[in-house]
Amino acid sequence: MSTQRAYEDLIGRWKELQLLESCGAVLGWDERTYMPRGGAAHRAEQHALLAGLAHERATATEVGELLSRIEEGDRHFTPDSAPAVNVREIRREYDRRTKLPRSLVEAHAKATTLAEQAWQEAREKSAFGLFRPHFEEVLRLTREVAEALKTGGSAYDALLDRFEPGETSRNLKRVFGALRDELAPLVAAIVDTGREPDASILTRDYPVAKQTAFGVAAAAAIGFDFERGRLDETVHPFCTGIGPGDTRITTRYDRNRFAQAFFGTLHEAGHGLYDQGLDSAHSGTPMADAVSLGIHESQSRMWENFVGRGRAFWTHFFPKARDEFPAALADVSPDAFHFAINHVRPSFIRVEADEATYNLHILLRFALEEALVEGDLAVADVPGAWNERFEKDFSLKPPDDAHGCLQDVHWSAGLIGYFPTYTLGNLYAAQFFESARGDLGDLDGQFAKGEFGPLLGWLRDRIHLQGKRYPAPELVEAVTGKPLGHRALMTHLKARFGPLYGV
Amino acid sequence: MSTQRAYEDLIGRWKELQLLESCGAVLGWDERTYMPRGGAAHRAEQHALLAGLAHERATATEVGELLSRIEEGDRHFTPDSAPAVNVREIRREYDRRTKLPRSLVEAHAKATTLAEQAWQEAREKSAFGLFRPHFEEVLRLTREVAEALKTGGSAYDALLDRFEPGETSRNLKRVFGALRDELAPLVAAIVDTGREPDASILTRDYPVAKQTAFGVAAAAAIGFDFERGRLDETVHPFCTGIGPGDTRITTRYDRNRFAQAFFGTLHEAGHGLYDQGLDSAHSGTPMADAVSLGIHESQSRMWENFVGRGRAFWTHFFPKARDEFPAALADVSPDAFHFAINHVRPSFIRVEADEATYNLHILLRFALEEALVEGDLAVADVPGAWNERFEKDFSLKPPDDAHGCLQDVHWSAGLIGYFPTYTLGNLYAAQFFESARGDLGDLDGQFAKGEFGPLLGWLRDRIHLQGKRYPAPELVEAVTGKPLGHRALMTHLKARFGPLYGV
Repeated sequence: MSTQRAYEDLIGRWKELQLLESCGAVLGWDERTYMPRGGAAHRAEQHALLAGLAHERATATEVGELLSRIEEGDRHFTPDSAPAVNVREIRREYDRRTKLPRSLVEAHAKATTLAEQAWQEAREKSAFGLFRPHFEEVLRLTREVAEALKTGGSAYDALLDRFEPGETSRNLKRVFGALRDELAPLVAAIVDTGREPDASILTRDYPVAKQTAFGVAAAAAIGFDFERGRLDETVHPFCTGIGPGDTRITTRYDRNRFAQAFFGTLHEAGHGLYDQGLDSAHSGTPMADAVSLGIHESQSRMWENFVGRGRAFWTHFFPKARDEFPAALADVSPDAFHFAINHVRPSFIRVEADEATYNLHILLRFALEEALVEGDLAVADVPGAWNERFEKDFSLKPPDDAHGCLQDVHWSAGLIGYFPTYTLGNLYAAQFFESARGDLGDLDGQFAKGEFGPLLGWLRDRIHLQGKRYPAPELVEAVTGKPLGHRALMTHLKARFGPLYGV
Repeated sequence: MSTQRAYEDLIGRWKELQLLESCGAVLGWDERTYMPRGGAAHRAEQHALLAGLAHERATATEVGELLSRIEEGDRHFTPDSAPAVNVREIRREYDRRTKLPRSLVEAHAKATTLAEQAWQEAREKSAFGLFRPHFEEVLRLTREVAEALKTGGSAYDALLDRFEPGETSRNLKRVFGALRDELAPLVAAIVDTGREPDASILTRDYPVAKQTAFGVAAAAAIGFDFERGRLDETVHPFCTGIGPGDTRITTRYDRNRFAQAFFGTLHEAGHGLYDQGLDSAHSGTPMADAVSLGIHESQSRMWENFVGRGRAFWTHFFPKARDEFPAALADVSPDAFHFAINHVRPSFIRVEADEATYNLHILLRFALEEALVEGDLAVADVPGAWNERFEKDFSLKPPDDAHGCLQDVHWSAGLIGYFPTYTLGNLYAAQFFESARGDLGDLDGQFAKGEFGPLLGWLRDRIHLQGKRYPAPELVEAVTGKPLGHRALMTHLKARFGPLYGV
């Protein structure tokens, strides 16, 4: 079999696998939007069947044989060409899936199911003791996963690599450390001013139907294509790319919380724009797949925060918002509104944090989970370590563990190595945005006129259409000319909050 | 391998097959409700993949071997017991799927795809000639399908058997003939009275949001469980049972067509009640599957027409309707409303026909398609045969083929042997309803008080929970003590329309 023939066989198999997994994506979307409650048990069986069929295909010995034939074959693909990228990434995925013993996968799945239940109760009662033995078991098994997956780096690197291929804890410590050194003082300085916007503007009456229409209009304005996607309501918003031409985003509405739905919609639309911008000529292969969670998050954060919370964006949108929500906004100035949506205030809960303090939440989690995995921190000591670090960074003392180390679901689900991708998203977004501004000139002037096409086109060419051609660390250098660093994000945060708070 | 062990293996395989097909049901529902237009091509690929996987499983040689082992095994299941029924029905399905050569299935699929496209154009232009060669090809291949599936009866019987197992064209001719002999004169007598309700009542202003709420309330009142199902909007309404606990119904709304959405909702809710009433202890096996299309249709027609267009139903619901739609109904009496929803008028289009003339539309189609399959009618002669028969039964002359033989999609899709199930639904419904009245006493008194539980409970026990235990001809005898006949339907129609029209 020639290399070319083996490659075509491999791609055919991989596309079928992706197609099968995309059926699961439809089921997942339905489950979180419209499925009646009574359908849950049957849905779990459907998911299990499809996941089993996908696992069989992803780990089939034929895939391994085809990969070997190509790698040892008569022909070498040009580096970074589509075939080279596809083979590299399929190899990566194949190794990852075949390295984990089935018994470990099952034990991990079982432990996390129990741990999530225990976590829910523990959070409700703010009783860490209820969660502790489960967390210990999940950690133990997750470390086994790390050992199985390790290819040289640390155990934590092996876990991180599942979500952010090519990234290392060593590099994160460097960048996150530098970020923290500048960000914590900035937040402290903002707090010290004693200035606060009138945030009550955002909790006035915003009828849900109008929020929906306004959110759809804004998502469409930044380029989300509703012929090839849709927006629905859910409890925990998400974006799912079902296939080329079908990208679904979601949000949740509260009549008295304008910002939640609106920025949630922009955030998910940012994810959706990435999915809609993937190269349809390569659908079903890694060349039409997102680079990493961090890069995906950079797209959502860019549109939500860098664009959507900017003054120029609201130069265009505020008059429309005032027309749509006269009861809430008739007596509000654009500047007062802009200050309200950029209210910096240290608080306990990550998902409610503002753009600046958010990263301090992530840095704390990274430090703790890295120490847990490397054996430098015991699960029993997590609450103490959390609270100590929290006081240091936020000058606030968590009243209980529900407002501290029990607030997030991730660890109970075994998602260790995942949190960093949120701040990586902000860091990448800042670097991309800075480069885009360099290339495209007066972005604010464009946004103020409702022109988002130039920025989107720039992201399409440099990021979306590249698929998995470059791992994230290489992509960020290729696009911005610089390795990952903290400068661009700090520059952005200072430029945004400096004028508002006079710091 | 013991018979019991073989049976358990068989059932395990069959449940997995059903689970896989239920994933396709979610995709199908999504496609017809929420899928963005751009997702169509990918959805087609998803369907093809799942259908292929299902076909592999349904026709696996292991299934045939297990069936043989059970049938020739050391033990015989009690007739009509769950295992006996499951084995009988899986054998039926296995034979049906393995008897058709793959080449024929593919040729048929290709021909019907082209024929549907041609039909659409032909209907738009009312040009039968555009459809004729395609219809000839579809008929030719459908006759080949019939030859492959035939097990003794006529070719038409083999086609009919796909939708209504156990039914024969000979029996249909007998029953449909008797029905026509009494129904055509009844319709003629009604027309002769010259009486007409004020049907414009139903095309007044009925805001869509209120129609939705009213439809949901009515569906819930007759017993549709919204914890285990939902109602959505679509273009061509349908009901789909995704799995135990998840039954989806759909309708379509027009602000000026109250009856369309409301009776459509009751109709689909009737289908949904059947699905929700299947025995969850047998989920995934024929014992928890509907008997036939005709029996399924009997449930939808029962709730839509026998219950929903009855005077007693509106004794309960009309005051609510007037509260909900004051602009449309404030000046309308319950009797005037009831007359309007029972407006009998011969017309050209089947899907717009009233409860009485509807069956004449079906009888015509049955006669023609049976003659086509048996070689007694040429495709070229269909328009002439249609119009001749139509004038005889409706005293109306179709102005063109778009209002005649080109109006329905079925024949282009190869759905020959399908039309009879609509009138079978009415006939079964009439017999069931007559028996229920005998068993439950004053049904009208119950409906007038909004009590639908007794009827639903009766249907559950005798029909829904029986699954495929009895083929339709046996079921109707077991439940009503009589074989299929036309009397109950004629009695119902005379009782309904006699007083309204004074005939």
